[in-house]
Amino acid sequence: MSLTIGVDIGGTKIAGGVVDEKGHILKEARRDTPATDVAATERAIVDLVDELRADHDVATIGVGAAGWVNETRSVVYFAPNLAWRDEQLGEELAEACGLPVVIENDGNAAAWGEHRFGAGRGSQDLVCVTVGTGIGSGLVLGGALYRGGFGIAAECGHMQVVPGGIPCPCGNLGCWEQYASGRALVRNARTIASARPGDAQTLLELGDGTPEGITGLHVTQAAQDDDPAALAAFAEIGRWLGQGMADLVAVLDPTCIVIGGGVSEAGELLLEPARAAYEVAITGRGHRPFAELRLAEHTNDAGLIGAADLARL
Amino acid sequence: MSLTIGVDIGGTKIAGGVVDEKGHILKEARRDTPATDVAATERAIVDLVDELRADHDVATIGVGAAGWVNETRSVVYFAPNLAWRDEQLGEELAEACGLPVVIENDGNAAAWGEHRFGAGRGSQDLVCVTVGTGIGSGLVLGGALYRGGFGIAAECGHMQVVPGGIPCPCGNLGCWEQYASGRALVRNARTIASARPGDAQTLLELGDGTPEGITGLHVTQAAQDDDPAALAAFAEIGRWLGQGMADLVAVLDPTCIVIGGGVSEAGELLLEPARAAYEVAITGRGHRPFAELRLAEHTNDAGLIGAADLARL
Amino acid sequence: MSLTIGVDIGGTKIAGGVVDEKGHILKEARRDTPATDVAATERAIVDLVDELRADHDVATIGVGAAGWVNETRSVVYFAPNLAWRDEQLGEELAEACGLPVVIENDGNAAAWGEHRFGAGRGSQDLVCVTVGTGIGSGLVLGGALYRGGFGIAAECGHMQVVPGGIPCPCGNLGCWEQYASGRALVRNARTIASARPGDAQTLLELGDGTPEGITGLHVTQAAQDDDPAALAAFAEIGRWLGQGMADLVAVLDPTCIVIGGGVSEAGELLLEPARAAYEVAITGRGHRPFAELRLAEHTNDAGLIGAADLARL
Amino acid sequence: MSLTIGVDIGGTKIAGGVVDEKGHILKEARRDTPATDVAATERAIVDLVDELRADHDVATIGVGAAGWVNETRSVVYFAPNLAWRDEQLGEELAEACGLPVVIENDGNAAAWGEHRFGAGRGSQDLVCVTVGTGIGSGLVLGGALYRGGFGIAAECGHMQVVPGGIPCPCGNLGCWEQYASGRALVRNARTIASARPGDAQTLLELGDGTPEGITGLHVTQAAQDDDPAALAAFAEIGRWLGQGMADLVAVLDPTCIVIGGGVSEAGELLLEPARAAYEVAITGRGHRPFAELRLAEHTNDAGLIGAADLARL
Repeated sequence: MSLTIGVDIGGTKIAGGVVDEKGHILKEARRDTPATDVAATERAIVDLVDELRADHDVATIGVGAAGWVNETRSVVYFAPNLAWRDEQLGEELAEACGLPVVIENDGNAAAWGEHRFGAGRGSQDLVCVTVGTGIGSGLVLGGALYRGGFGIAAECGHMQVVPGGIPCPCGNLGCWEQYASGRALVRNARTIASARPGDAQTLLELGDGTPEGITGLHVTQAAQDDDPAALAAFAEIGRWLGQGMADLVAVLDPTCIVIGGGVSEAGELLLEPARAAYEVAITGRGHRPFAELRLAEHTNDAGLIGAADLARL
Repeated sequence: MSLTIGVDIGGTKIAGGVVDEKGHILKEARRDTPATDVAATERAIVDLVDELRADHDVATIGVGAAGWVNETRSVVYFAPNLAWRDEQLGEELAEACGLPVVIENDGNAAAWGEHRFGAGRGSQDLVCVTVGTGIGSGLVLGGALYRGGFGIAAECGHMQVVPGGIPCPCGNLGCWEQYASGRALVRNARTIASARPGDAQTLLELGDGTPEGITGLHVTQAAQDDDPAALAAFAEIGRWLGQGMADLVAVLDPTCIVIGGGVSEAGELLLEPARAAYEVAITGRGHRPFAELRLAEHTNDAGLIGAADLARL
Repeated sequence: MSLTIGVDIGGTKIAGGVVDEKGHILKEARRDTPATDVAATERAIVDLVDELRADHDVATIGVGAAGWVNETRSVVYFAPNLAWRDEQLGEELAEACGLPVVIENDGNAAAWGEHRFGAGRGSQDLVCVTVGTGIGSGLVLGGALYRGGFGIAAECGHMQVVPGGIPCPCGNLGCWEQYASGRALVRNARTIASARPGDAQTLLELGDGTPEGITGLHVTQAAQDDDPAALAAFAEIGRWLGQGMADLVAVLDPTCIVIGGGVSEAGELLLEPARAAYEVAITGRGHRPFAELRLAEHTNDAGLIGAADLARL
Repeated sequence: MSLTIGVDIGGTKIAGGVVDEKGHILKEARRDTPATDVAATERAIVDLVDELRADHDVATIGVGAAGWVNETRSVVYFAPNLAWRDEQLGEELAEACGLPVVIENDGNAAAWGEHRFGAGRGSQDLVCVTVGTGIGSGLVLGGALYRGGFGIAAECGHMQVVPGGIPCPCGNLGCWEQYASGRALVRNARTIASARPGDAQTLLELGDGTPEGITGLHVTQAAQDDDPAALAAFAEIGRWLGQGMADLVAVLDPTCIVIGGGVSEAGELLLEPARAAYEVAITGRGHRPFAELRLAEHTNDAGLIGAADLARL
């Protein structure tokens, strides 16, 4: 049975695992991400791979990274939150590890993981939306991962949803991820708590009592306790999440949209307002079938499992 | 050499042609569209096909229609501007003509025509945007026409570009085609001519002297004569066209975007403001390659040629 | 004690009353509005005035009309929903009735009525927002009705709140009254009922079972029964109402905003989401006092009472 | 003849002058603004006043400050760009100088200056829009300065023009001053220069060659040399300036709008696109008179002159 290693490089943690052909993780390990130091990040990956290989025989390594990867799946053009610019990551890791290495965008890897072994099983035309600090995404079209003409497809978080809207680190105004992400959730919650503190009592008590002290985890917890401000903050990002997914339906007409990422752990708190907005915003609703929304099954591991599987292809 | 018939059903005209394997039209014919009468429309198609077959031996028929076609390419779910609702168009035409018939969305057919025989030759990942009264579109991904999970992909004109924006016949607010189409061009021109008649002298003289009398053709002609209002009307739809194409780059990362349709006959009047906005709106510009914009080569025939070719596949 | 007649000309009804100096209505009468017929409308007013004068001695007549009135309070420049264009309404009515007549915009009249005898008593700097089919408004600044330089101030319903938004009969896109009025309430309710009929069961049962059969009254009734679609429709217009009022605070800094008109009869169903959005949207919230929101006291009669009182000044 | 001192406290400079009853400045002086140090700022003002009084006999002092001033014209509630929070500025300066002191918002002071001695002479209903780094504004209604119910009227730069738009230091999203100010001009120019450097050659040469090196002065200079990027940057802020002024017409119906501030020194470069957008965006255009747009006459001194004159009232 063929084993591969999947690595998921996030902004704060590098997660790795030995994965079998059925998507099961046989062994896991983690490292901190030295985000601003390219060489240190590579050393951490190699070190992690060594730990994982110690007692498993692996054939290849798949790496999911939060950056734009070229069409040969080896060079990272650009990573908004890491120090990579035209980084020959694939080649360098392959040399350091002595194994073939495939680099993949992390949103793509997660989409593939859910398609093969998660909520997207059985769907040949699938969009996966990973709602974390920002929005990651991946497309499985006709049963294959779709990477675009230059390898940069599925940067759906950077569709403009508000003309002249909130500035995005990508250089544009009004990107979807400024409205439907964990960052937006916290921004909404702080604004509401500052203007209507009476509606945010539970929410404020979870932190240091000030709007600035509110974190994403607080918002989820307070929303579970029916805090009006926290529920309103979820309603707002849900509304935008639903609208953006309807836009993706207009372009791609998938059979299924999988919603993953840390914010999706809030479950129906996020999904209910998202679905309400989504159904209202589908073009031609009432005259057509359209994609079902599903929560991801591998919220935290989809990228790792997907990267491991993509290393086989 | 194998010949097929391509038929393009528009809101006012049905155009048909006998097309060879190189995309050359050997014979053409036209009929008026009896838009509200389903049976009459089918009779007109059959009649047109008979005329075309008279002196050419054809194997199959491809029909491009402005509607949502199911995944088996035979049923029209819904056509915003025609009377079809769950219409078994493919079967009925096949029976009436005694030949295999393939139905395709007209935007898809045009994309395929440009991919095979026009401005999209050589591009395996291509978006075609047809700017007419509304916006049609088609996707060629990985060298194949991408039809989506239910056959309704590439309704890109119905992405929302303005939250709470102009109502669209599709039932939504703020669809792209309300801002970047021939209809938008005329609306802009009338508004400007009504508020600033001194800027619209040429434009107003081309019609009956009133803003309401302005047509799309007038706007193109007046813009060619440097009428400030007409140029401003083109600048405005160009701005929106560029923004929407940049959104499609974020999702699909094609290598090429082909702009066709009647409004594209204005050439640089449309393309220049569109390109200016497009380049500003590309996510991550400066750190990545992105799709080249090209004017269609078969502005009027792309749908016909594409439908004919798709009938072969 | 001096009595005057107040007349309020609406789109469907003309209401008149004999009003004393304390704003009490001593006698009332109504007529239907022959909206498209200028002469018939004037005859209906004269007839109504005759009925009211029969047993009360009145000094002057004040007329509130849904149009733009010139600075001498006698000419109607333009009435979006009536047939008046540069109509010498004041002079004609004065001649026909043999009494001095003052014409006033109906939103202004309602603002004055609430300032003198209603929810705005005691506030010298007051905005009154009348939420009916559209949005009317009036300004009392420094204790006096503010009519603007040309007599057309307080067309607040025509501030743009959505760039490129819903077309308004005034000729612009995205006016406030397209988002925060009775018309918007019904539009929202129909859209939601069509996309998510399961959330609109009560709402749909109140009419003929179709989204198109939903009226404003149905939405209020269903919202009182906790119908999710109806509540969502109110939440949406409340959100826009609150935002627009915060914009007026930025410009005018009133001490009080009175919300009247037919839709305000829904009370907290409207006021609660409006207040929530309003408090979030106040510029510099936390560092400043800002206007209190109040429901009108003379929801249906404010215009009549106000017009009667303005006829005294 | 009665003389007063006017002081205008800006973010970087404090300007003061001895002003006569006709608005003539008899003597001027300047100090740097120690922006973050309240006591030092007050000392600088006192020092400046002493210099100005040395050879002129003055009766009172008027101070224009970029903050929200209470209704008794003595306390600064809040100043976004200075260190004042509920500062008893009037009392403290009066004590230190031994003269009566009146504090006024700087936008109000500028409006009054233009009304009395500048482009707004003769207009009793006037809006003054000061386009600098942000947008200041002032209202003269019925011939008197309108200060609002709490003294904070005319914060027009904080009307929301884009729902969900660019964050503003005031705590809101999408404020007018984020789109129609000097800051917006520079942001637009940098974005365009980065995406389309070929259109920004003159503009880039004026600075260090990078988009980040572009300043507001560069944009004005390059626009005067027909640099396409600089012209586009002006066109964009002009468009928003015009829209916002049309919104103010809907609310206030002034007879005149005066445009001042540093950015207005660009003259027609700003005014032409602003006027074009303004005329299109007037509600009910064609059926009504509306305010004329005028450039300020005292671009740099309107606040000083106005504050001096307000100290007389």
